[in-house]
Amino acid sequence: MKRFFPILDWSRSYTRETLSQDLVAALIVTIMLIPQSLAYALLAGLPAQVGLYASIAPLVIYAIFGSSRALAVGPVAVASLMTAAAVGDLAAQGTPEYLGAAIALAFLSGLMLLAMGFLRLGFLANFLSHPVISGFITASGIIIAAAQLKHIFGINAGGHSLYELTLSISAHIHEINWPTLGIGIFTTGFLFWARKGLKRMLLKQGLQPKLADILAKTGPVAAVALTTLATFALGLDTQGVKVVGQIPSGLPVPTLPPLDLQLWLKIATPALLIAVIGYVETISVASTLAAKRRQRVDPDQELIALGAANVGSAMSGGFPVTGGFSRSVVNFDAGAQTPAAGAYTAIGIAIATLFFTPALYYLPKATLAGTIIVAVLSLIDLGALRRTWRYSTSDFAAMAATILVTLGFGVEAGVISGVSLSIFLHLYRTSKPHYAVVGQVPGTEHFRNIKRHEVQVSPEIFSIRIDESLYFPNARFLEDTIYAAIANDPIIKHVILVAPAINFIDASALESLEAINQRLKDAGVQLHLSEVKGPVMDRLRRSDLVEDLTGEVFLTQYDAVSKLAPDSAKKAMRGKRQV
Amino acid sequence: MKRFFPILDWSRSYTRETLSQDLVAALIVTIMLIPQSLAYALLAGLPAQVGLYASIAPLVIYAIFGSSRALAVGPVAVASLMTAAAVGDLAAQGTPEYLGAAIALAFLSGLMLLAMGFLRLGFLANFLSHPVISGFITASGIIIAAAQLKHIFGINAGGHSLYELTLSISAHIHEINWPTLGIGIFTTGFLFWARKGLKRMLLKQGLQPKLADILAKTGPVAAVALTTLATFALGLDTQGVKVVGQIPSGLPVPTLPPLDLQLWLKIATPALLIAVIGYVETISVASTLAAKRRQRVDPDQELIALGAANVGSAMSGGFPVTGGFSRSVVNFDAGAQTPAAGAYTAIGIAIATLFFTPALYYLPKATLAGTIIVAVLSLIDLGALRRTWRYSTSDFAAMAATILVTLGFGVEAGVISGVSLSIFLHLYRTSKPHYAVVGQVPGTEHFRNIKRHEVQVSPEIFSIRIDESLYFPNARFLEDTIYAAIANDPIIKHVILVAPAINFIDASALESLEAINQRLKDAGVQLHLSEVKGPVMDRLRRSDLVEDLTGEVFLTQYDAVSKLAPDSAKKAMRGKRQV
Repeated sequence: MKRFFPILDWSRSYTRETLSQDLVAALIVTIMLIPQSLAYALLAGLPAQVGLYASIAPLVIYAIFGSSRALAVGPVAVASLMTAAAVGDLAAQGTPEYLGAAIALAFLSGLMLLAMGFLRLGFLANFLSHPVISGFITASGIIIAAAQLKHIFGINAGGHSLYELTLSISAHIHEINWPTLGIGIFTTGFLFWARKGLKRMLLKQGLQPKLADILAKTGPVAAVALTTLATFALGLDTQGVKVVGQIPSGLPVPTLPPLDLQLWLKIATPALLIAVIGYVETISVASTLAAKRRQRVDPDQELIALGAANVGSAMSGGFPVTGGFSRSVVNFDAGAQTPAAGAYTAIGIAIATLFFTPALYYLPKATLAGTIIVAVLSLIDLGALRRTWRYSTSDFAAMAATILVTLGFGVEAGVISGVSLSIFLHLYRTSKPHYAVVGQVPGTEHFRNIKRHEVQVSPEIFSIRIDESLYFPNARFLEDTIYAAIANDPIIKHVILVAPAINFIDASALESLEAINQRLKDAGVQLHLSEVKGPVMDRLRRSDLVEDLTGEVFLTQYDAVSKLAPDSAKKAMRGKRQV
Repeated sequence: MKRFFPILDWSRSYTRETLSQDLVAALIVTIMLIPQSLAYALLAGLPAQVGLYASIAPLVIYAIFGSSRALAVGPVAVASLMTAAAVGDLAAQGTPEYLGAAIALAFLSGLMLLAMGFLRLGFLANFLSHPVISGFITASGIIIAAAQLKHIFGINAGGHSLYELTLSISAHIHEINWPTLGIGIFTTGFLFWARKGLKRMLLKQGLQPKLADILAKTGPVAAVALTTLATFALGLDTQGVKVVGQIPSGLPVPTLPPLDLQLWLKIATPALLIAVIGYVETISVASTLAAKRRQRVDPDQELIALGAANVGSAMSGGFPVTGGFSRSVVNFDAGAQTPAAGAYTAIGIAIATLFFTPALYYLPKATLAGTIIVAVLSLIDLGALRRTWRYSTSDFAAMAATILVTLGFGVEAGVISGVSLSIFLHLYRTSKPHYAVVGQVPGTEHFRNIKRHEVQVSPEIFSIRIDESLYFPNARFLEDTIYAAIANDPIIKHVILVAPAINFIDASALESLEAINQRLKDAGVQLHLSEVKGPVMDRLRRSDLVEDLTGEVFLTQYDAVSKLAPDSAKKAMRGKRQV
């Protein structure tokens, strides 16, 4: 029971002190979440209240199922962009079909996460390599920021890739609305300054650093208040400034996602991508925060909690949610001790939904766009490109491909090509494993690469050490290498495969070894193995190879050479053996 | 030059003796190839002469470019089935569009092979694991045999999967033609007997074993001669026995494949699969035969040779060709010394095409079907299923999936699902690598798994040895494992990653290590590395990890423990540390 309901674990030791810490954190996160939830609904192309709905039920559900003590779930930038991309192809913004498709997307990705959780398929998220995720998030951040420009300029434009957006914005730039641009520039500028300057100012006023840090995070709320008041007071909405307008007040009502198989098939791929990418973001934040307090996060339980939260979001009229990075860090820094803080945040949002929505009538969309731009710029990490380039060109290739394809063709194509490329490059790398022809270091029992060391070898013996597990991508490599060696050097009578670095031999490599054994036999050469690891040997015993082997299996390479060649036959060789 | 034209190498030492050996082999292969080429054209749904055309130009071209001394290229069963499956969806059999699509398929797969050869992409073929190839060939053999039943029964039926074929044959079984069935059963029975019985009979007649072996391979020609004569003599073609009929005599004329982009896009996937599978078959046979004589095959040159042969096949009105297994073995056993034997075979086929086609008018299709059935039964290897099951369940899963999907949904779906599953299972396996918490064997400098050995550990030190390269599928596993260990055991002050089995660390795993370093620092724990391999360390130096590391990099685990814990602090532990 406790595995599936972590709430049973932490609620037993819930004290008055924990309560007050959770309440403080909840208050701060609520203030941060109100503008964010509206902004991300806007980004997803949905009515503003959908953002609020997605910030109530999912938070309560996560409090019950979540294993992280400080994770704050809700609408986030990248998932909102992916929602817009997936739903935008199916229906026009503002239609009931558009909203229905967004709800179905949350429902389906929730079901997928639940299924993955029960089947313990959390490892699937690992197939997204870090460079691919990092590249994807950087590219998403750029697209999101570009998509906000239409709100900042007050023009009509659209598109899901950077290319489409650029074209569309250029075509409509003459429609620019100057009061809107003023609000957009003010908000963006103010929030940029607030990220660092506000804290510095508050510190000068004598506030405690921690409090100043938290108050500085309320910049967006200040921007919302200022620009809403200005719009109301100056009647800017009559001068073309687009405002959020009427938000229906009242709590969300239970909703069923559209039961339309055709629709579900169409959104299956984006739902899976949202599920996996949302999960990766969630588990990264959750385990980072848990490790700081030496707590644990259960990766499979997080799948279940995030899945249930998304199903809950869909059934209360919301859209896909995940664990947000900056919000969770604020929650953690503000002292949240248990997932109950999330439930209290949900209560805060519910109160806002019930009573404060009329106050948001005059909130300009340009303000929300400015909020989003400043938030997503922290997602863009171009330094990662440089770091990855320095460390590994193949990882850099996967990262660059993800960024370019995402910018050029949209989020789904970007993720899929990044994942495919990183798997391909991995298989390519292991298909040409490092190997060394080895000889004996004179006077010792050690064997080393003949290209790097002064060693002794017997001309009749060809000892090759492969520094990689043997499996299908490199099975033929092994055959080619050994056949080439014996074709070039007719003196060879023994081939020894030195295997201390081989962690695994699959059925393909086994067949290659059997073929090598047979071919060498036909050519009058014996095949031997040495230094085979225990588990590898256990498995080989289940095959016919050991029985059919023309040579022997030696415990050490020294045993092998001692038996196969008398000392007198050895001679010094360094880099002479052709391979 | 010699790299791209192996003919320049072997032709210099071409003697009169080599010539006579090649001529004998060519004669035998020609006799074997005539019925096969007709039968495989039939299998591909093409006119009989297309099989002959595909057995002329490609053989001459391979003789120029091929690096194998004994490979016999031409139409083969599996590629013919794949051609039928690919082209059957696009046009009706017997139409010029059908023939055009088959020619385009040969052309496109030839171009793909050439491109792979020039780009040295031969390793792509390695992504087909042995169990997938073996399962695919077994399933193809079953489908091919089933597809022949309509010719044996003399009924109209069709389909590309076992399911479709079974349905279609059941629906038409009432149309059965008894003379056709008689010929089909006679041919099949005779050829079954000929495979073993004919050789035994010839040996009893006092023939030399080698000659008897080769003559026994001419069984199909005998069956062709007998049934053709019987059909002619008894006028069976007027009783519903379908015959090959008029084959246009004369050499093929230069052909251009249809230049239709839509068509090329549609056949791109099957062309790639035919290219890759044909190449895998070719290189397996070629390297097997080469190793027997201590010769070499150049895998990239084989791509070029096979690609040129396919382009040549297309431009002379033929369909996809590859290196055939049984035909190459016959060529080798009959004494072929150089690829010139293939060119002489081409001359033999050309003579047959010019002069003997009228003699094939009364050749019953049922005879060709019987030839195919007996030939493909040797492809079906159900024993491989049992052997693979015994050795590795994950390889067995890939193999079984390939067989079932091929039988149920056709050849393309079968190959694609087999390849995907074997890559997935490989990533899954490495995503949960073997690891051991290690301690010191008392009185030595050795460190062993604390679950298996009586070892000493210091409670403050957690030493973990990962027996796998660190890369994206297992990057999070490492984080989870270490975080779990320090969360369970608050005494730990040092984590040592013991790395002698790590051959590679990619950018994802590097980021995980950096995250672990940072999180452990926050929790007051130091991270150390020990026994890092040279190339891995070289790469790590290009990152910030070594500089940021809270702990040290030790050459040996003994150095690490000696420095971090005084001897007095150690205590005996066996399997006590919770992980």
